Amino acid sequence: MSRIRVGVLLSGCGVYDGAEIHEAVITLLALDRAGVETLVMAPNVEQLHVINHLTGDVVVGETRNVLQEAARIARGNIRDLATVEPQELDALILPGGFGAAKNLCDFALKGANCQVHPEVARVVRGVHALGRPIGAICIAPALVAKLLGEEHPTLTIGTDRNTAAALEAMGACHQDCAVEGVVVDEKTKVVSTPAYMLARSIAEAAAGIEKLVAEVVRLAAPRS
Amino acid sequence: MSRIRVGVLLSGCGVYDGAEIHEAVITLLALDRAGVETLVMAPNVEQLHVINHLTGDVVVGETRNVLQEAARIARGNIRDLATVEPQELDALILPGGFGAAKNLCDFALKGANCQVHPEVARVVRGVHALGRPIGAICIAPALVAKLLGEEHPTLTIGTDRNTAAALEAMGACHQDCAVEGVVVDEKTKVVSTPAYMLARSIAEAAAGIEKLVAEVVRLAAPRS
Repeated sequence: MSRIRVGVLLSGCGVYDGAEIHEAVITLLALDRAGVETLVMAPNVEQLHVINHLTGDVVVGETRNVLQEAARIARGNIRDLATVEPQELDALILPGGFGAAKNLCDFALKGANCQVHPEVARVVRGVHALGRPIGAICIAPALVAKLLGEEHPTLTIGTDRNTAAALEAMGACHQDCAVEGVVVDEKTKVVSTPAYMLARSIAEAAAGIEKLVAEVVRLAAPRS
Repeated sequence: MSRIRVGVLLSGCGVYDGAEIHEAVITLLALDRAGVETLVMAPNVEQLHVINHLTGDVVVGETRNVLQEAARIARGNIRDLATVEPQELDALILPGGFGAAKNLCDFALKGANCQVHPEVARVVRGVHALGRPIGAICIAPALVAKLLGEEHPTLTIGTDRNTAAALEAMGACHQDCAVEGVVVDEKTKVVSTPAYMLARSIAEAAAGIEKLVAEVVRLAAPRS
């Protein structure tokens, strides 16, 4: 039996302007330990901005490319999202970090009125249309709510009322969830966990992410 | 009983010009799961250079600061190495990545004739002088060999003959080690593991790093 292959869609490298690094690495480790092949990908676009992670300030005049920065997390083993076909993936996982809401879509700026990058929309919708699971971590469920809102997926971003309301405005059914928990919508095959929306430590984030990976792999497994 | 506090010394953010991200995150997770407080730190210096991790090329004209980039891995919770006193730390761990051999010292350029950044030397030597353990991952043992060579610590960078010879030229006793293994020098309290000097996957790297963290914590634990 060939191994299943799970895509991991990154949005840069760093919690404030890209992919949340802990969430991305814990996802990759859990997938590898589950015996799953991973295909890491990112869109070849400029970041919304660059944040100095020491001070939290925007770095004026500096630009960085999402694909190049995400390649740091992937150790260079990454694909331009534009070259990825949904058929290549048995499942797709989106780690969080502000990049998911700034670079993959503009939820951080526009909330429920956000737009999703066309390549991100193509791959997320394509994987879903094939009946394959989508895992969304931290703030990434916002993007899934926007794309799949017509199907009213049940998902979580933890307990934040304003964010939950925005997700419901896009059509999703928000369900509160503790940091070590996971929300599994068996019907739409959307799996989500709050991670650093709630986590106060890396071990707290890891507890939920490891459960998310296990559920995504379960839903992706070929039936016997 | 108060928790022990372990320092984690980073060298940037990305395997080719900074700290190896997987190694750093796996270290932080293992320490948190062991119930240990972590103090992440990095020197406030410019990187030797910036590498585009998608292509492997040097980015001409771009500079990045080691402390600011390391802050991405630390989610902003990081100290300038210059402000850290060895007495604050019950142990110190150095993840690898080329940054350990390009930014913390110049081993990547000068081999056994390398020089170590003065603040790095002060803290590593200071922690060691207090009888507290040092964990070194991947290529970071090169830096430890340079600083503690007079005591001939037994350590590993895996199996690479040229690198091992350079460590021996600096006074260390090199011991070959498999990727999932760890070399523990009980006398000098230096613990090392090859990680991505040998690892072909993140799970392979994690196996050795988790053992290293357990050994460092054991050596750092207050005696009852």
